[in-house]
Amino acid sequence: MVGSRATSGVEVQLDLAGPRVRSGLEHELREAVRQGRLAPGTRVPSSRTLARDLGIGRNTVADAFGQLVAEGWFVARHGAGTWVADRSLADASAESLAGSPRAPGADRAEAALRARFDLRPGLPDLAGFPRAEWLAAARRALAVAPDEALGYGDPRGLAVLREALAGYLVRARRVAASPGRIVVCAGFTQALELLGAVLHDRGATRVAVEAYGHRLHRDILATCGLATVPVPVDERGAVVAALDGIGGGVGGVLLTPAHQFPLGVALDPARRRQVVGWAADSGSLVVEDDYDGEFRYDRQAVGAVQSLAPDQVVYAGTAAKSLAPGLRLAWLVLPAGLVDEVVEARQRRGLFPSALDQLTLAELVVSGGFDRHVRRARLAYRRRRDRLLSDLARHAPQVEVSGIAAGLHALAHLPAAGPTEAEIVARAADHGLALEGLGAFTYHEPARRGPALVIGYGTPPDHAYTATLARLTAVLSP
Amino acid sequence: MVGSRATSGVEVQLDLAGPRVRSGLEHELREAVRQGRLAPGTRVPSSRTLARDLGIGRNTVADAFGQLVAEGWFVARHGAGTWVADRSLADASAESLAGSPRAPGADRAEAALRARFDLRPGLPDLAGFPRAEWLAAARRALAVAPDEALGYGDPRGLAVLREALAGYLVRARRVAASPGRIVVCAGFTQALELLGAVLHDRGATRVAVEAYGHRLHRDILATCGLATVPVPVDERGAVVAALDGIGGGVGGVLLTPAHQFPLGVALDPARRRQVVGWAADSGSLVVEDDYDGEFRYDRQAVGAVQSLAPDQVVYAGTAAKSLAPGLRLAWLVLPAGLVDEVVEARQRRGLFPSALDQLTLAELVVSGGFDRHVRRARLAYRRRRDRLLSDLARHAPQVEVSGIAAGLHALAHLPAAGPTEAEIVARAADHGLALEGLGAFTYHEPARRGPALVIGYGTPPDHAYTATLARLTAVLSP
Repeated sequence: MVGSRATSGVEVQLDLAGPRVRSGLEHELREAVRQGRLAPGTRVPSSRTLARDLGIGRNTVADAFGQLVAEGWFVARHGAGTWVADRSLADASAESLAGSPRAPGADRAEAALRARFDLRPGLPDLAGFPRAEWLAAARRALAVAPDEALGYGDPRGLAVLREALAGYLVRARRVAASPGRIVVCAGFTQALELLGAVLHDRGATRVAVEAYGHRLHRDILATCGLATVPVPVDERGAVVAALDGIGGGVGGVLLTPAHQFPLGVALDPARRRQVVGWAADSGSLVVEDDYDGEFRYDRQAVGAVQSLAPDQVVYAGTAAKSLAPGLRLAWLVLPAGLVDEVVEARQRRGLFPSALDQLTLAELVVSGGFDRHVRRARLAYRRRRDRLLSDLARHAPQVEVSGIAAGLHALAHLPAAGPTEAEIVARAADHGLALEGLGAFTYHEPARRGPALVIGYGTPPDHAYTATLARLTAVLSP
Repeated sequence: MVGSRATSGVEVQLDLAGPRVRSGLEHELREAVRQGRLAPGTRVPSSRTLARDLGIGRNTVADAFGQLVAEGWFVARHGAGTWVADRSLADASAESLAGSPRAPGADRAEAALRARFDLRPGLPDLAGFPRAEWLAAARRALAVAPDEALGYGDPRGLAVLREALAGYLVRARRVAASPGRIVVCAGFTQALELLGAVLHDRGATRVAVEAYGHRLHRDILATCGLATVPVPVDERGAVVAALDGIGGGVGGVLLTPAHQFPLGVALDPARRRQVVGWAADSGSLVVEDDYDGEFRYDRQAVGAVQSLAPDQVVYAGTAAKSLAPGLRLAWLVLPAGLVDEVVEARQRRGLFPSALDQLTLAELVVSGGFDRHVRRARLAYRRRRDRLLSDLARHAPQVEVSGIAAGLHALAHLPAAGPTEAEIVARAADHGLALEGLGAFTYHEPARRGPALVIGYGTPPDHAYTATLARLTAVLSP
């Protein structure tokens, strides 16, 4: 038994015997992670230290580390050593979280067990989070924040952030916003839960949703006691005319007008007018999920539907794509008559976002740092999109790509005659590449569309993008 | 019309005419805040700048600022100028949030309109939040956090924080904790919502609660579809024998064993054993709300009930009192069989706390900074408690104080023959002092106790504590 004390203070006990040192070491390290002796998120001793303590060659240790990184147990950070993967793979597999509906952490943990490369949609480039700018903004914000900001605070979110967001949304997304109508939430999903609760309290029994979208959103509405009714989507966005014959009890419709998720189309101007007309006539709400509105590449940003009818439309924005999901910050701009109800629903549940993150985001927006970051990120994502298009055109010309004008994902249509979505996804998994097919995001639109992949080109870190695209084209090449 | 550009970039437009310059200026500043031109949380121009821009005397401006601070519109920060109060008074009054059940922000905003001094319970000294230590920990944490930590992350909370909390809870609160059984929540109220949802899903219809406590907690349980049944509280804590005859459908009991809120008593050892026996026999849960367990003054900390029966007791801790409510960080230590259900309830709602705050708290705990802060705070609060006791003994000897061994509040019993709770609270309001009577925290225990005040001696900032106590003794002196 040889002990080595990691810099993180975690004790690593390795029991090594016999000739197969490298595979034995790999096994011991896996077990140490699985059993929690090497805790997720902690730093692993350097290969030099471990090799010396164990009396084995440093290359052997380095090779074992490389294998564990490849398997997703460890994460190598440039110049900062090797770390136990933060999301505990051992826990995820042992406790079988993967069965629950769209469990983001567990899904990804499970996939990380088998995939080194990831093009599933839903994440920005987490390596692009502006850590230094964020910390500097936090420092400036905490230097001047009144003590009261650290208390329970305004139930709509801190005024300083609502003020900053109102300015930003008017300027960048043409939203009709004022601080008094903004409610800051701990992520879009919480915002949706609040809206669902309010609609249910108002007597709604159903909410219309696009026929393609996130299962989690429908699950949250179901948790609020609301059934969901699909609205078809075509190349001009949601077919909002379908709302006319939808019947009673519909509290509203959840749309992604700027960049439909996952099809990637923008809601056509005539339909924008049509849907707010429907909302006004029927007394329903339009919920505008503007999840990636900051990222539009080829033409002027599409303005918010909300600006057409601020009393019929709830605008929902988020920092999940523009900064990082881990911030858990999103914001609603509400019709004036809805603010009290949403605040009251929140108070009955006690759901509030972090005051420190709110203060910091406010400072980042007011100082211009948020805009600078979004501009940088937009350029980087545009380049990634262009790379995706040119690589696919060269190596998999039979694949047609759509939904490319905006956002962090595109739709890659597979030839109807070729392999199915499931076959491609499975083939990619064998290549260590995690993909998701359009089927995973389809609510209920029988056989209208051929097979397609929803390619999340924002997901990989920059340094892995080339290798990730190479896997994709290898999987797709005819 | 004279314009002055504040350092915060907010434009202040003041329309001044006639001789009554100071009251005119006060009126204009109030209107500027009310209408949002001077945004909450922004810095007001210095009195020197404003006086020069407006062509009036600096003392006049300084006097007007002083008046607005007294009225709660502005906040003066030592050496950092004058700021518009963060929680928008104008909004709170105009939008009448105060009517909703236990609206923390709105309540306090409304009270701030009339009260300069505050001894209501529920807040720690927000001025004592260790801003510099927090920022330093955030910097260290972000320097090493893997990118994955900024994503959706583990649905139980980041592993690095669960690891740190497990160590802390075992050491400081004698909780039987392991990282795999911890779920990090965005505040205790969210934790309670998750537990309520799980109990409801299990078929429970009722939850027992102490007869004295927070109305918000009962409201949250009601939102989960659970009725609440009161359990009497005496000088040995909750009378848990009452649970035996409570009937069916009771999913659990919510207790504050270390320091009953608001009565301040500790749950007697025999009753601790009794309640976990009841839970085991009836298949119910004990939810142990350890909201201020860090702060015990006169003897060894009372260990957690959870350690007696980790499979019957859910332990709930929070950073709201030990650091600040605005962090929105709390943690559950769950029976092993409950983890999946709580995680699944969370996933159906999408409720997750800030990743950055999680990383930072983990670093603060692991580095020892959290323990140092708690030790400093404990000493400071103990001194405040001793001041409260000695001032009351000297100036209001007819008031008997109990519940003083721990926490940030004490119970001041008023002589039955004297003024009622409501009369004292009203008299205090006239003196600019916000107080709350025991009645505000009474569920349903008819006329068992005489009138009392729940004195939150943690609430005022240090520099105001002497003046606040002077108001209290003036109000209470016979």
